[in-house]
Amino acid sequence: MPRFRDTSLLNSKPSVPRKDRKKNPKDIKRTIDPAALEMLDHTQECNIITAFDRWSAQQPQCAFGYQGICCRICFAGPCRIKSDEGPGSMGICGARDYTIVARNAIRMMAGGCSAHSDHAREVVNVVLHMCEGHAPDYKITDPQKLYRLADKLGVSREGKSDMELLKEVAEIALADFGKQDEKPLSFLWANLCEGRKQKYMDCDIVPRAIDREVVEVMHRTHVGVDADPINLIFGGLKCSLADVTGEQIATDFSDILFGTPKPVMSEANLGVIDPEKVNVVVHGHNPILSDMVVAAAKEMEEEAKAAGAAGIQISGICCTGNEVLMRHGIPLATSYMAQELALATGAVDVMVVDVQCIMPGIRNVAECFNTKIVTTIPISKIPGSYHIPFDESRAMDCAKEIIRLGIETFKVRKESGRPVKVPQIKSKCMAGFSLEALLDLFAAINPERPLRVLTDAIINGELLGVCLLAGCNNLEAIYEKSHTEIIKGLAQNNVFLVGTGCVMQAAAKHGLLTYEGVEKYAGPGLKAFIDRLYEANKDKLPDKLPLAFHMGSCVDNSRVFNLWNLMAEEMGVDVPKVPFVASAPEAMSEKAVAIGSWVLVNGIPTHVGTMPPLEGSNLVWSVVTCIAHDVFGGYFILETDPEVAVKKLVAALEYRAWKLRIHKKAAEEYGTELCQAF
Amino acid sequence: MPRFRDTSLLNSKPSVPRKDRKKNPKDIKRTIDPAALEMLDHTQECNIITAFDRWSAQQPQCAFGYQGICCRICFAGPCRIKSDEGPGSMGICGARDYTIVARNAIRMMAGGCSAHSDHAREVVNVVLHMCEGHAPDYKITDPQKLYRLADKLGVSREGKSDMELLKEVAEIALADFGKQDEKPLSFLWANLCEGRKQKYMDCDIVPRAIDREVVEVMHRTHVGVDADPINLIFGGLKCSLADVTGEQIATDFSDILFGTPKPVMSEANLGVIDPEKVNVVVHGHNPILSDMVVAAAKEMEEEAKAAGAAGIQISGICCTGNEVLMRHGIPLATSYMAQELALATGAVDVMVVDVQCIMPGIRNVAECFNTKIVTTIPISKIPGSYHIPFDESRAMDCAKEIIRLGIETFKVRKESGRPVKVPQIKSKCMAGFSLEALLDLFAAINPERPLRVLTDAIINGELLGVCLLAGCNNLEAIYEKSHTEIIKGLAQNNVFLVGTGCVMQAAAKHGLLTYEGVEKYAGPGLKAFIDRLYEANKDKLPDKLPLAFHMGSCVDNSRVFNLWNLMAEEMGVDVPKVPFVASAPEAMSEKAVAIGSWVLVNGIPTHVGTMPPLEGSNLVWSVVTCIAHDVFGGYFILETDPEVAVKKLVAALEYRAWKLRIHKKAAEEYGTELCQAF
Repeated sequence: MPRFRDTSLLNSKPSVPRKDRKKNPKDIKRTIDPAALEMLDHTQECNIITAFDRWSAQQPQCAFGYQGICCRICFAGPCRIKSDEGPGSMGICGARDYTIVARNAIRMMAGGCSAHSDHAREVVNVVLHMCEGHAPDYKITDPQKLYRLADKLGVSREGKSDMELLKEVAEIALADFGKQDEKPLSFLWANLCEGRKQKYMDCDIVPRAIDREVVEVMHRTHVGVDADPINLIFGGLKCSLADVTGEQIATDFSDILFGTPKPVMSEANLGVIDPEKVNVVVHGHNPILSDMVVAAAKEMEEEAKAAGAAGIQISGICCTGNEVLMRHGIPLATSYMAQELALATGAVDVMVVDVQCIMPGIRNVAECFNTKIVTTIPISKIPGSYHIPFDESRAMDCAKEIIRLGIETFKVRKESGRPVKVPQIKSKCMAGFSLEALLDLFAAINPERPLRVLTDAIINGELLGVCLLAGCNNLEAIYEKSHTEIIKGLAQNNVFLVGTGCVMQAAAKHGLLTYEGVEKYAGPGLKAFIDRLYEANKDKLPDKLPLAFHMGSCVDNSRVFNLWNLMAEEMGVDVPKVPFVASAPEAMSEKAVAIGSWVLVNGIPTHVGTMPPLEGSNLVWSVVTCIAHDVFGGYFILETDPEVAVKKLVAALEYRAWKLRIHKKAAEEYGTELCQAF
Repeated sequence: MPRFRDTSLLNSKPSVPRKDRKKNPKDIKRTIDPAALEMLDHTQECNIITAFDRWSAQQPQCAFGYQGICCRICFAGPCRIKSDEGPGSMGICGARDYTIVARNAIRMMAGGCSAHSDHAREVVNVVLHMCEGHAPDYKITDPQKLYRLADKLGVSREGKSDMELLKEVAEIALADFGKQDEKPLSFLWANLCEGRKQKYMDCDIVPRAIDREVVEVMHRTHVGVDADPINLIFGGLKCSLADVTGEQIATDFSDILFGTPKPVMSEANLGVIDPEKVNVVVHGHNPILSDMVVAAAKEMEEEAKAAGAAGIQISGICCTGNEVLMRHGIPLATSYMAQELALATGAVDVMVVDVQCIMPGIRNVAECFNTKIVTTIPISKIPGSYHIPFDESRAMDCAKEIIRLGIETFKVRKESGRPVKVPQIKSKCMAGFSLEALLDLFAAINPERPLRVLTDAIINGELLGVCLLAGCNNLEAIYEKSHTEIIKGLAQNNVFLVGTGCVMQAAAKHGLLTYEGVEKYAGPGLKAFIDRLYEANKDKLPDKLPLAFHMGSCVDNSRVFNLWNLMAEEMGVDVPKVPFVASAPEAMSEKAVAIGSWVLVNGIPTHVGTMPPLEGSNLVWSVVTCIAHDVFGGYFILETDPEVAVKKLVAALEYRAWKLRIHKKAAEEYGTELCQAF
C-alpha cells in the first residue's frame, strides 16, 4: 500500500543550479544511443556537421534568453532584464521580468497550438474532400471509430451513410477552428470529465475557437497590451486547451481514415536501414502523406526489385514514424535528434518530409551523399531540396513519384559503389496501444468496466499510478539518457507507463517496449499487472506485453488525455485526484510547451527535464510550479536530473495515492461509495 | 516637371553603419519636443523613471537580437548566428541566418495582424450585439457609410432596415476572421484594384481568413517547418494582407458607429492638460471605449463643477487619441513615447486604457502621484492598476464610472494641495481627414471625378506625389525629430502628405497640421495645391488647410490603402505606377511591421527610419529592399538618417513620376488614353 513519504520533494527547486547544467559542452557525443555513438564517430571522421556539433558551437548560450528575460516583441528592443532594480530591471516600455517571461512563454504555447491544429485542419480538410469525392485514394478504414465519435458529439447516425455522417462530424471539427461565438469547442467539451469543465468555466479559460485563441495570445502579448503575468498565463492556458482540441481532432480523424492502432511488433534504430533495399525515410508528422507512401511502397515492391534492389524499406523518424509504426508496423529509423545521423549512413535514398521537427540541417548532410530530401507541403520547404507537392486529389500518384525517385536514387547509389555505414543496431518493439487497444486488453479481465482493471490496481496498491511520457529531444540533456532512466526508474516503482512521441522512440530503440524490459526493470506490482494483462489476452497478442505502452505520436497525447478523463469518471472524481503524472524528459519544441500546459491545466503534475525559459521570473516560476497546483491540481516539476526527477514524480504519485487511500478508508467507514467520498 | 535624377539612391544601404547608430546612449533627453524636454528635466529632478531612462539603461542592446539572428523559437536554444561558416553559422537545428531572420520577421507580422484584427473583431462584435439589442448605448451614426459599404460588398439594400443591413454586413466581416474555405476575404477583395488582385493570385498570397493566416505563420515558423526564407516571407506577406483586412473592418465599422471624420480643429501637447479641470486621459486604440468616455464626460460636466473643478478635460494619447480627435476634436495630450511624461505632470486624475501601446511603466509613474490607471479589457491588465471591465451592454454606465473616479481623484488632488507641473506648451492642429473628407475637398474642384484633382496635380508636376506617414515612436531615433524633419523635407519637395498614428501626433504637436506649416515648409507646388483646395472649400472648413492631412489612427491606414487603390483605378494603372511612397520614421511595434509589409506588397516604396531586425541576413535584406521591387513594386527603404531618408523617398517618387511622364508622352504620341498606355 503506497504511503506519502517525502513532502520536501513536492514543488522543490531543480537540484542542479543553472551554472552547473550543460557540462562538457565540447563533448559532442552527448548520447547513450549506441547507434548514434557509432554514427557520431563516423560524422566526425568525415567532417559532417550535425546538431551535436552545432549544439556544442552554441555554448555558452545566452543566459537572458535561456531564462526568458530577453524581449524582442517590439523592435525598440532587444531588451534584457539586466538588474534587480532601477531602469535596467525593466524593458524600455517598463515591462518587468514577470511580464516578459509570461509573454514569451504563452507565445510558445500559441506556436505549439498552431502547429498541432494546422496538422489537424489538414486531416479534416482531406476528410471533407474525400466526402465530396475529391480525394479518391483515401477511405474510411475504421467506421466503428466514426460511430463512437458521432455518439460522443451527440450526432444522430440515423439514416445516414458513413460518408454523410463523416462529413457532418468533420464540419463540426472545422467549426472548432473558425467559429466566432463564445460556445465551448465541441471536440474539447465531449472529452472532458465534469470536474474539469467546471474548473475551466470557473477560471474563464474555456477556448472559443482554436484559431481565435492563437490570435488572442498574439494580441495580448503585443507591445503595450497585457502586463499582468497571471492574466497572461491564464490566457496561455486557454490557448493550450485549444491545442489539445486540435490534437484530439487530428487523432480522431486519422484513426477513421487509417485505422485505430492495435498492438503490433516492429524494430527500431538505424539498423533497420537495409543498404540492399531502396530506403525511403518518412519524417515529419502527418499520416496523410506517410500512410500513402507506405501503401505506394507495397505496390511498387516489384519495380524496386526490377531495379536491382532487395525491396523497398520504409522507415520512420519523428511522429510520422510513430503513425506508420502503430498502424503498419513500419520500423523506426530513429528519433528527432539523430535524424541527420540516419542520412549520414549514406544508405538513405529518399527522405520525404511534411511538417514540424524537420531540421534544416538535413540538407547539408544529404548533400554529402546522393540522398534526396523531398519536401511536400507548401508551407514547409528547405532550400536546395526537391519539392513534390503532395496533392490529396492524386495522393497515390504523388506517393509513387516519391518512391520512384527513391528507386532511381538507389540505382545511382548502387552504380556508384559508394560505401555506406549502417550501424548494425536495432531493437524489437511493440507499439500500437491506442486507447481502444488498451481498453480492449483490460476488457479481457473486466468486460463490464474495463478501466476498473487499472484503477483497482492503483487503489489496491499494486500500481502506484500512471505516468505519461511525452516530448522531444533536447541536447541540454544527454540524448535518450533521461528518457530511458526515467522509464526504468518509474517502472521499478510500479508505475504503469504510457507514452508518445520521441520518448517512445527512445524506449523502442533501447528495448523498453518489450517483455524483456518488464523482466529487467518492472517492480513486482507492475510486473504482476502486465503479466495478468497478457495472460488474459495472449491469444490475440503478437508477443508478450512491453514495459511501456506506446500510444502514438505527439497529437496522440489526446489518447492519454482521454485515458485520464475516463479514469476520473470511472473513479467518480476530478482528474487531480487520479494518481497520474506526466514527464517530458527532453522537451524542446513549442508543441511540447503547449502540451505541457494543457496537461498541467488538466490537473496532472508534469515533469520537464530540460529547462523552459521561465527561471528569469520568480513570480512566474512559483505560479507554474506551486500556485498552479492549488488552482488546477497540476503543476510543473522542473528538474534536469533524471534520477531526482524519478523521485519527484514518485512523490507526486504517492501523495495522490495516499490521499486516495485516506478517502477510501473514510468511504468504507462511513459506508459510502468511493466515488462519493471525493 | 519632375525628372528622375539619382538612381544611386534607390535600394542603397543605410547611410549610418550599425555601430554608429544610437549615439550618446547616456543622454536621456532624446527628443526635440519642448514639452517632453521640460518634463524630462522634471522627472530627473524627481527621480521618476521613464522610458527615456530605461532606453539608456538598455544600451548597448544585444546585437544578435537587433539584427534578427537570435532564435528562441524552440527551447533547445537560444541560438545565435555566431560565425560566417562552420557549426556556429547555424542554429542547433541547422537553421541559417536567412531562416532565422525571416521567421522572426514574419512572427512580428502575425503579432501585428493579431492586434489589429482583434481590435476589429471587438468593433464588429459590438455592432452585432447592438443589432441584436444588447448594446443600447451605441447607434448607427453614419448610415451613408453603411450604404457605401454594403454597395462595395455587393450586399443588396432593398427592403432592409439599417439595422438589418448592418447585421448582414457585420456577419460578412465576422466570416473574414474565421471562415475555413479558400475564397478571398470580402473586406480585402472589395478594396483592391484589379492589378493587385491579379498580383496576389499570381504570387499565391491571397489570405483565406484572418485568424487562419496568423495560425499558419505561427505553424510554418515552428521548429522544423519552413526553412525557405522566400517561402517564409511570402507567407508573412499573405498574413500582412489579412492585417489590412482587419484594419479595413475596424475603420469601416467605427465610422458607421461613431461617424466618418470631417475636418476639425483642436490642440496638441501636454499644455492641453488643465490642472483646474478633472483630467481624464484616454489611451489605447479602440473607439468603442473612448468614444463612450467622451460622451459620458459631456453629460457629467456639471457633476465635475459641483466637485470644484472647472470642468472635465478629456485628452488623448496614441491612436484612441486620434479616434476622438478626428471625430470630436478632443485634444491630444501627447504620443506613445511621452505617455509617462503626461502622468509625471501630476495633473492627470485618471488614465483609462484599453489595448496596445500602453507602457507597463505608466503604473510606476502614476504611483508617484494620486493618478489612477484604469484598465478595461480582460486581455489587457496592469498589476497594481484599477480594472473596470468595460461592458458594452452598459457602456455608458461604465464610462460614467470611470469619469466619476476621475472626479473623486480630482477632489483628493485639490484637497492635497500638491503642486502639479504642466508645461505650457501646445499647438493648434487640424485633423479629421477621412478619405471621404479628402474626396469632398477634391469634389469642390472636380465634382465628377474628384480624385483627378490629385492625380492631375501629380501628372502635371505641381505635386511630386503622395507620401503616407505612419508608425510609432522608437528611441533609436530622437523622439519626433525624424517625424518632423521628414514631413518638412517632403513638403519642400512638393509631396502631398497624408498620415496616421503617432507621426500625425508629432505633426500636430509641432504645428505641422496648420496653415502656418504650409507657409513655412511647403514647396511652391504643394502650397498652390493646398491653397487651391482651400479656396474651393473655404465656406465649409473651420480653418485654412494644413501642411499634412491627418487621416486617423493606425487602423486608418486602411483609408490610405483605399486612397492609393482608387488613385490607381483613376489613373487606369496598377498601384506600383502611382507616385506614392510611405514612411514610418520611428517604427517600433509589430503592428508597424505588419503595416509596412502590406504597404510594400501593395506596391509602395516604404521607408522605415528605425532598423527592423533584418540586418543579420544579406539574403532577406536584399529580398525586402530590392527583389520585392521587382515582384510587388514596393520595397523597404531602411534608412535611419532622416535627411537621407527624404532624399531616398524623393528619388523613389521622382522615379515613378518620370516613368509616368514617359508613359504620358507615349500616350499622347500614339493618341491613346493615358490609362491605356500603362
